[in-house]
Amino acid sequence: MESVRLGIIGIGNMGTAHSLHIHADRKVPGMVLSAVCDISEERLAWANEHLPGVAVFDQASDMYQSGLIDAVLIAVPHYDHPALATLAFANGLHVLVEKPAGVYTKQVLEMNAAAEEAGKVFGIMYNQRTNPVYQKVRELIQSGELGSLKRVVWIITNWYRPQAYHDSGSWRSTWKGEGGGTLINQNPHNLDLLQWMLGMPSRIRSFCSFGKYYDIEVEDDVTAYLEYPNGASGVYITSTGEAPGTNRLEISGDMGRIVVENNRISFDRNRISERKHNHINTEPFKAPESWYVEIPVSGDGGEQHIGILKNFTNAILHGEKLLAPGEEGVYGLLISNAIHYSTWTDSWAVLDSFDHDHFHELLQERINNSTVQKNVSQKVSDVRGSH
Amino acid sequence: MESVRLGIIGIGNMGTAHSLHIHADRKVPGMVLSAVCDISEERLAWANEHLPGVAVFDQASDMYQSGLIDAVLIAVPHYDHPALATLAFANGLHVLVEKPAGVYTKQVLEMNAAAEEAGKVFGIMYNQRTNPVYQKVRELIQSGELGSLKRVVWIITNWYRPQAYHDSGSWRSTWKGEGGGTLINQNPHNLDLLQWMLGMPSRIRSFCSFGKYYDIEVEDDVTAYLEYPNGASGVYITSTGEAPGTNRLEISGDMGRIVVENNRISFDRNRISERKHNHINTEPFKAPESWYVEIPVSGDGGEQHIGILKNFTNAILHGEKLLAPGEEGVYGLLISNAIHYSTWTDSWAVLDSFDHDHFHELLQERINNSTVQKNVSQKVSDVRGSH
Repeated sequence: MESVRLGIIGIGNMGTAHSLHIHADRKVPGMVLSAVCDISEERLAWANEHLPGVAVFDQASDMYQSGLIDAVLIAVPHYDHPALATLAFANGLHVLVEKPAGVYTKQVLEMNAAAEEAGKVFGIMYNQRTNPVYQKVRELIQSGELGSLKRVVWIITNWYRPQAYHDSGSWRSTWKGEGGGTLINQNPHNLDLLQWMLGMPSRIRSFCSFGKYYDIEVEDDVTAYLEYPNGASGVYITSTGEAPGTNRLEISGDMGRIVVENNRISFDRNRISERKHNHINTEPFKAPESWYVEIPVSGDGGEQHIGILKNFTNAILHGEKLLAPGEEGVYGLLISNAIHYSTWTDSWAVLDSFDHDHFHELLQERINNSTVQKNVSQKVSDVRGSH
Repeated sequence: MESVRLGIIGIGNMGTAHSLHIHADRKVPGMVLSAVCDISEERLAWANEHLPGVAVFDQASDMYQSGLIDAVLIAVPHYDHPALATLAFANGLHVLVEKPAGVYTKQVLEMNAAAEEAGKVFGIMYNQRTNPVYQKVRELIQSGELGSLKRVVWIITNWYRPQAYHDSGSWRSTWKGEGGGTLINQNPHNLDLLQWMLGMPSRIRSFCSFGKYYDIEVEDDVTAYLEYPNGASGVYITSTGEAPGTNRLEISGDMGRIVVENNRISFDRNRISERKHNHINTEPFKAPESWYVEIPVSGDGGEQHIGILKNFTNAILHGEKLLAPGEEGVYGLLISNAIHYSTWTDSWAVLDSFDHDHFHELLQERINNSTVQKNVSQKVSDVRGSH
């Protein structure tokens, strides 16, 4: 195979951007846009005009079976990701899925099983993994520079979205249309980065507010307490109701404290580990000597979506390792689901024994009991929330 | 009365410092140190040598009834504050009590009742209330500059205390000797400032770890989720096990966000309130215009203990309003007790209906079940933890 022939399903906000990057700007060497699919006539007309030479389809299965594509990029609303991915695998296609992997873990685990059976390349658009800042933090942790994890606090409240945003799509900010609020729409990248850098927490106790700031039924304010397998604790705070909001990530370990803010990394680094200091020290008020370090970070935010597309292409053509394997989409979603679940049940969510079926039931209850007077269409074309 | 004749009970770390400030350095106009009391012969010998002309007692009641003093400063271990204050009121004395007001709210409420009945001046050594930084933040909130509270996050983990600290006193870090760990020893100032600036939360859900970092039975790691009467949420994080640790206070309101760090106040101030913006705005991704403001703060940390002593003196002599009325000591302690209680019961602690008796029972259980092999003496002289 000399090049990957891609089909994009869903040419809304994200699909449109991807199509232009690949087709018009040729930003992804080895990748050719061969087909697009949407159920909106308006979007298909747009494709015919702006994507010359690209086949257009209004049915996913037709595109999948056309023989025109080797791989599909799925950029439809969240709920439809797993089913369309599973169908693609059944048609022998490689799959790159937009985030989130899905809305509830039960469907995503089924997608992952289909992926494993198919043996195709399966990626997820976790473009924030290309950000050198988070790559560096991850490396500092995994290399042992920070020492054993003690605490993480991520205040990520700069996701301000006014009422006008929630009113801008009939499916937006509804249980039926999105399956959640800011956890499922704005926060999937952050939740993935959290587990990518630190691994999975073992249990979660959360405090979500639903429609606290806006006339919506889903969560717009979240505080979650996390516990990790080694006993470390964490707090994850997000909201769409605060302006100007904060994005500050603090990670404490035995060797000191890392703070990420304004895309810069500082590291207050202990000269010897705190645990070692504590063992040999005899003075009641003495802390280990600590040095303030500014950690250099190369690149300016990373290649983002283009980087993921290149990596996906090279994985298919040359066996390059995926930066964001599709199967890993379930991790951030499990944290997200667990945060919902803990608040809904006013109890702990234990991740190792998470009740995927019960979560799905509780989500379905909320869909069934919804009183939102929006005409939710779940159109494949409308992906404006899939950032 | 031309001057206040003070007696200090407990001449350990804090009592000693206070005695020298008042007697040797004459830093408190209108206040004269007339007597001190301790049960330690060594400390009384020290007093005879370093506090010439000051009467020494080895029994509180003797000093109280000596006729030599108008007021008493109580600087003994936490548990003994309420009883010694109550006895002082019964003897017609004004009272200044070191923090915390006591160990459990039940005893502190009884002390407050005694104070009310006595009608004497009753202060508490919340010296951090003299810090212009917190005074300014309080003023920004109470004047409405910040608008309605949305969230507070205080990461106050720079209370590092190694094992050598916990081993430095037989009463330290035990249920019997202190009645708690970092909540009761290091954090009373912060918990008071929190309620002083923002008012009391309505309920708390907390996650304390006991002996996580040290060989102690009490808490050395705390995360608490707070809810306020207006629906605002908060997180309070503290620990003695992290180095170098953080002291960062973030308060979000309708008019923006205040951050206090390194004794400086920044205010990201919305040009119009977020709620008003949200009401009139029609653009999905538009946030209110925000201005970065550095808030000027006069003074360098404030007069601290000396300021409280001056204020207490002037309250007695001239009726000056107390900056830290003793009756307000119960607020921070209630938050502290509620944080313990929530973890012990793995449930919400509702402050309006807090079960003071049940808390006391649960604390007593921990004292009774303690397996700590320290010879806890609760000596009146040993106040080295009362910072």
